[in-house]
Amino acid sequence: MRSHYCGEPGLDQVDETVELCGWVNRRRDHGGVIFIDLRDRTGLVQVVYDPDVEDVFATAEKVRTEYVLRVKGRVRRRPEGTVNPEISTGEIEVLGKELEILNAARTPPFVLDDDDVSEELRLRYRYIDLRRPEMLERMQLRSHVTRLLREYLDNNGFMDMETPMLTKATPEGARDYLVPSRTHAGKFFALPQSPQLFKQLLMMSGMDRYYQIVRCFRDEDLRADRQPEFTQLDVEMSFMNEEQIMQHMEDMIRGVFKGALDVDLPDPFPRMTWAEAMDRFGSDRPDLRCPLELKDVADLMRDVDFKVFSGPASDPAGRVAALRVPQGCKLSRKEIDDYTKYVGIYGARGLAYIKVNEWTAKGREGLQSPILKFLPDEAVNGIMERTGAEDGDLVFFGADKATVVNEALGALRVKLGEDLGLMEGEWRPLWVVDFPMFEWDGKDKRWTSLHHPFTAPREEDLELLDSDPGKCLSRAYDMVLNGTEVGGGSMRIHRTQVQSKVLELLGIGEQEAEDKFGFLLNALEYGCPPHGGLAFGLDRLVMLMAGASSIRDVMAFPKTQTAACPLTEAPSEVSPAQLRELSIRLRLPQKEEAS
Amino acid sequence: MRSHYCGEPGLDQVDETVELCGWVNRRRDHGGVIFIDLRDRTGLVQVVYDPDVEDVFATAEKVRTEYVLRVKGRVRRRPEGTVNPEISTGEIEVLGKELEILNAARTPPFVLDDDDVSEELRLRYRYIDLRRPEMLERMQLRSHVTRLLREYLDNNGFMDMETPMLTKATPEGARDYLVPSRTHAGKFFALPQSPQLFKQLLMMSGMDRYYQIVRCFRDEDLRADRQPEFTQLDVEMSFMNEEQIMQHMEDMIRGVFKGALDVDLPDPFPRMTWAEAMDRFGSDRPDLRCPLELKDVADLMRDVDFKVFSGPASDPAGRVAALRVPQGCKLSRKEIDDYTKYVGIYGARGLAYIKVNEWTAKGREGLQSPILKFLPDEAVNGIMERTGAEDGDLVFFGADKATVVNEALGALRVKLGEDLGLMEGEWRPLWVVDFPMFEWDGKDKRWTSLHHPFTAPREEDLELLDSDPGKCLSRAYDMVLNGTEVGGGSMRIHRTQVQSKVLELLGIGEQEAEDKFGFLLNALEYGCPPHGGLAFGLDRLVMLMAGASSIRDVMAFPKTQTAACPLTEAPSEVSPAQLRELSIRLRLPQKEEAS
Repeated sequence: MRSHYCGEPGLDQVDETVELCGWVNRRRDHGGVIFIDLRDRTGLVQVVYDPDVEDVFATAEKVRTEYVLRVKGRVRRRPEGTVNPEISTGEIEVLGKELEILNAARTPPFVLDDDDVSEELRLRYRYIDLRRPEMLERMQLRSHVTRLLREYLDNNGFMDMETPMLTKATPEGARDYLVPSRTHAGKFFALPQSPQLFKQLLMMSGMDRYYQIVRCFRDEDLRADRQPEFTQLDVEMSFMNEEQIMQHMEDMIRGVFKGALDVDLPDPFPRMTWAEAMDRFGSDRPDLRCPLELKDVADLMRDVDFKVFSGPASDPAGRVAALRVPQGCKLSRKEIDDYTKYVGIYGARGLAYIKVNEWTAKGREGLQSPILKFLPDEAVNGIMERTGAEDGDLVFFGADKATVVNEALGALRVKLGEDLGLMEGEWRPLWVVDFPMFEWDGKDKRWTSLHHPFTAPREEDLELLDSDPGKCLSRAYDMVLNGTEVGGGSMRIHRTQVQSKVLELLGIGEQEAEDKFGFLLNALEYGCPPHGGLAFGLDRLVMLMAGASSIRDVMAFPKTQTAACPLTEAPSEVSPAQLRELSIRLRLPQKEEAS
Repeated sequence: MRSHYCGEPGLDQVDETVELCGWVNRRRDHGGVIFIDLRDRTGLVQVVYDPDVEDVFATAEKVRTEYVLRVKGRVRRRPEGTVNPEISTGEIEVLGKELEILNAARTPPFVLDDDDVSEELRLRYRYIDLRRPEMLERMQLRSHVTRLLREYLDNNGFMDMETPMLTKATPEGARDYLVPSRTHAGKFFALPQSPQLFKQLLMMSGMDRYYQIVRCFRDEDLRADRQPEFTQLDVEMSFMNEEQIMQHMEDMIRGVFKGALDVDLPDPFPRMTWAEAMDRFGSDRPDLRCPLELKDVADLMRDVDFKVFSGPASDPAGRVAALRVPQGCKLSRKEIDDYTKYVGIYGARGLAYIKVNEWTAKGREGLQSPILKFLPDEAVNGIMERTGAEDGDLVFFGADKATVVNEALGALRVKLGEDLGLMEGEWRPLWVVDFPMFEWDGKDKRWTSLHHPFTAPREEDLELLDSDPGKCLSRAYDMVLNGTEVGGGSMRIHRTQVQSKVLELLGIGEQEAEDKFGFLLNALEYGCPPHGGLAFGLDRLVMLMAGASSIRDVMAFPKTQTAACPLTEAPSEVSPAQLRELSIRLRLPQKEEAS
């Protein structure tokens, strides 16, 4: 139906007759002539209709925004002064000879170049929203990224394999989406939170290198930027250690950035232990674009006459840390108050600070701070030395449980970096390694996995499983990019005894283990190779690459924060007959109360 | 951990030291020496351990079938007479110098080269079953086919896009799998039976060319070879007609056969109208490898004194057809009885036949048949002439409702073709076109869609929608290969009025249409381009290409005929707390009766 896409004709096509199809982006009447900007996936082209061919001109007059047209015309150079460098076809225009209206269109509910449309409306009319060049580009980027990922994996011996969607409740720990079985009354499938166990089984099957771009499901409350269904690039390899796995994954991601964005990521990616990341950045996914770093000052604060500092400084689970803000003296009272509120989100009860006005000339007298009176010279000197603060700087302090200080100052440093324009470099990838195997859950008084129960401990830490589990490090690795975890994985446990011991430590009893993933434990005994892998959050990776602010903007048909789809109006009610077939009935909250 | 895969070392590596990892396929002790056949994804290699290195030999003695090993050794040419041409490494063996047992293994529940293991056991221990070379090859073929499909589409401007899994009940007509919503009590998502409506929306979004390899779900009774979840290659294109779409899809499939099997499929694929396919083969997916054809003989039978023939011959919904079987005289009474039973599966109440013993010499006297007495000379001569039967042949007859005759004789011709070794050619693809838009459902007294309600009628048949819907042909096309429909699709309706009229004819009221797919009807009004597409059943395509007899054999983790997974024991019971969160409760059949 067409000879070219709309974005294609250029000076090379001058005097050629072209046929184009697309949507009317805009129609203007000017000096008795009709100008139509015709749009398709590739861009815009200007088509001009003169009144000299009456019937064609009459058709052109009927045309409205978003009508679907087929156009035939001759390409000509645009008159001097009317060239539009903003579009690929800006040097030419098409003198329309024929015009067919393939379909009319109602006036769209919003204008495509209006950036201020509610997300609800955009999602309800997603098919119109996706016509916006920005959305189209994101979809194209996603498709391109997917292709580049696949190409790397296909070319490196990875087999694309599919795992079930209707499966058994998985042990990831989040809430499962359940699917009632009709043929097995009273029983349910679960939609997978990840294909973790299946990919391990595939390694036991000898598939050697597996990958899948796969939908995963978590029925979580959609705080932050989560979706009930999301897409994971899932990879698993046998007979390789973590070095080789990380090497492959780095190469793959470098290739994707080069191919899709023409960006050269560093080779190799820097590495950092979990302990160092927490210490310097308060985060296990530090944004390295921000040069600000936390400095421990607990040793300086242990004996000060100020409980807010001395308490956490003496608590093994506490932390007291300082964060130097270059030229932070410029911050207003109001700004400091706002940052105090900001760290409050992360549970910090306050945000102490010292303004370094004239330290060089005046020493202690040149500092300004509500807490200064509590700090002996020794502490002050120590802080100044350790943070390297200079005249004009400001130093923030966090003192609390280590988790609170890390979260609060970890977030604050990035926010300060953005607010003050301190961010350096566009793309800063990083591997975080040497994670602890376990976290102590103080509330439930038990160990929990930092990754998942199938993550292998370091060989040299095996005995710590008995003697001091909290010190035991795992063979896990996370790929972090600009402060976001884009991928995470580990070497898996491939020996039955180690797996049993880890499950025991996690308080997962034999019966529970048997019920939940007995098939995996069983499979371990039939010849399991050493193996490991990774999973990448595809939505998040593409979101970062697209510079989008939400994963919803890189998904064609996302759901709202309440896990609903304004377009299709899913979820929806179903008939009593359907429920009967599934051997279930509703139990609505209201009815509960009534009965 | 390795320098080569097991299947790689050959004469080029002689005297090199190699490191290999894999599973013990077999261990033999012979003349004081231990032979280990080590296996991985790529094949087998023989590793030999001499007793001269004591500790290594001691380790080798511990090795059992399916143990996971790491081996280091020197490649040497096999002694004269011990070369094994069956395996890629058959000219060499590895003299083992080191041996590490990476993991032990229990004795597997079945021997890998036993072809007679129950499917239940194979599925329960799928991770062992998949180690069998036959299964491994199928998985590799599937991965390869997937890759070739993607490459074609990627290289031809198709965007890989994802559509939701948690969505709204789709109008395909089969039973949906439902997913209770926790956040919207009493409401349900449906898992997609296909992304049909979403891919049409993507065309309305201007995506132009879309594809997705996507999981689909149908909660059907698993007669024949169905699975509750299956995989579809889903494709949709805008601004193209059926010729261009079929051209693309043919090119793609030809490329897949060439790339994966080195098979040249015909270019172009032959085409046949639905009417011709039904007439000549009694099927809308004829297996062209079988040369047998049905011949209509109703006109010859209308007045015979045999109700079984004359009835259907005079019924507009009836059919009387003959099927000539070359050299069919050889069929025994028992064989003919078996074929009679066989057509009974398809509802045929009998299978009349004429044996053509000596027609040339004796004419009518040379025929043998229980029905001969009912047939006047005219009918007999007509049958002989029309079927072209010769001495030694046999002619079967079907007389019943056309649907019964077509199904019964359509199946019989293929079975005869296979039984009698008549099949010609290995791969016989075909496009079937010009399907009717509607079928009359005699039971419910209404029109139903032969494809689905979004299939466009032929432009020239638009007025038949009013005057004679049964005669209206659609713009649908099915790709058939060796008697199996591997893909099907159509041009879609892109105009609101046509869509409304078709829904009306199908008896889908405005309210029902609005409830079920109002969003699509709405979208049609906002600028919908002409578009069409196809969906291929990936499992079925790979099954055909692999020469497997069930789609279960080309799926890594399929379910049984009762939609259960013997490996994970899904579906399974869930806790009352989970059900409460989902606002549902069980309604088990027994409880029903009790209450």
